[in-house]
Amino acid sequence: MRISELSRRSAVPTATIKFYLREGLLPPGRATAATQAEYDDSHVRRLRLIRALVGVRGLSVSGAKEVLDALSGVETDTHGLLGLVFGIWPTPAGRAESAPPDTTAGAEAPSEAADRQSVDALITAMEWRVTEGNPAREVISETLRTLHSLGVEYDWQDLLPYAQLASRTAALDLDQLQGHDDPLDKAERAILLTFLLEPALLALRRLAQEAESAVRHTN
Amino acid sequence: MRISELSRRSAVPTATIKFYLREGLLPPGRATAATQAEYDDSHVRRLRLIRALVGVRGLSVSGAKEVLDALSGVETDTHGLLGLVFGIWPTPAGRAESAPPDTTAGAEAPSEAADRQSVDALITAMEWRVTEGNPAREVISETLRTLHSLGVEYDWQDLLPYAQLASRTAALDLDQLQGHDDPLDKAERAILLTFLLEPALLALRRLAQEAESAVRHTN
Repeated sequence: MRISELSRRSAVPTATIKFYLREGLLPPGRATAATQAEYDDSHVRRLRLIRALVGVRGLSVSGAKEVLDALSGVETDTHGLLGLVFGIWPTPAGRAESAPPDTTAGAEAPSEAADRQSVDALITAMEWRVTEGNPAREVISETLRTLHSLGVEYDWQDLLPYAQLASRTAALDLDQLQGHDDPLDKAERAILLTFLLEPALLALRRLAQEAESAVRHTN
Repeated sequence: MRISELSRRSAVPTATIKFYLREGLLPPGRATAATQAEYDDSHVRRLRLIRALVGVRGLSVSGAKEVLDALSGVETDTHGLLGLVFGIWPTPAGRAESAPPDTTAGAEAPSEAADRQSVDALITAMEWRVTEGNPAREVISETLRTLHSLGVEYDWQDLLPYAQLASRTAALDLDQLQGHDDPLDKAERAILLTFLLEPALLALRRLAQEAESAVRHTN
């Protein structure tokens, strides 16, 4: 199909498609003339993914490119692919707009190293095999650091029951990838569901908090 | 204490404290002279809360004011307070930077009303007592709408097991408020833990996904 048809089918404006082509987010079509190229279903699908990463979850173009490059660079071994998908997330939701790490904490705040060791202890206690490079480690140690800087006593043991629930959540996540045997299909669905469900999972927690509070504190 | 001492104890610059006073985020001190006021521990605590809302979780000043006004307006009935805390969250993490709702979805996308009814069905199935005004409802229906607009088949039954885990998460959240009997203390801790744990909970899910993928897809 021509770029105009690709635009119609994906509901992405032609100018935006050209921008994604220039930025390398979308692979080029098959050239049919000096200024024309032919696109196929893989481009429609890739555009859907780009819209999810950039448009819906607010990733930067370079963040989205990192995710997409990783996807196209891997072999068809499923764990290699999913491990990459799950390990490469640039910045978890809600962190992009956060203030830089607080450096005004009192002198009594535990050191960064201690908070990082806490995360290691949590991972060991959970018997999780996760790579050193998974950026989620740093998010957790920053959270502990922030709580400490605000004077809240909180340590990795307090996170342990949440980690156990996270394991069950992850099992559900992987279950919902069943029936998508093509590794790239699976990776695309993993990206969509991991990213797009994040706000909904936090929202479910908030509804559940209100409901739980009603049960505990009213007659 | 004077404003300079308040600044020292809270590690918030005097100019920032004055800004919060002007914006009504921080209640005024007790006037001791035309240009002087006396502050107390409640101001130190309130500044800690403001830093958590604005500085760490990136809320707008008006968003933070909404939360704080709600806190100071309520009576000491615990559910009234916590229900309010859990019901008033302005925008869950990760949504502030999101694109506006997608209006380019294909004609076959279910209507907004249908997605809202799905959320009602989910809440009914969970037997959750939650107010109509809880903004988390809309977050979930937007998530369903987005998934549908991207061609992903997904409905409220797919969210049901996540909702069951969210109930257990909320029970943990409420457990972690035990031992804070003063309702305002409890509400402050609820705000800190609900808000500040959000990135960590998403990060735990990502670590758990990597670990679960390792278990399922490697030997």
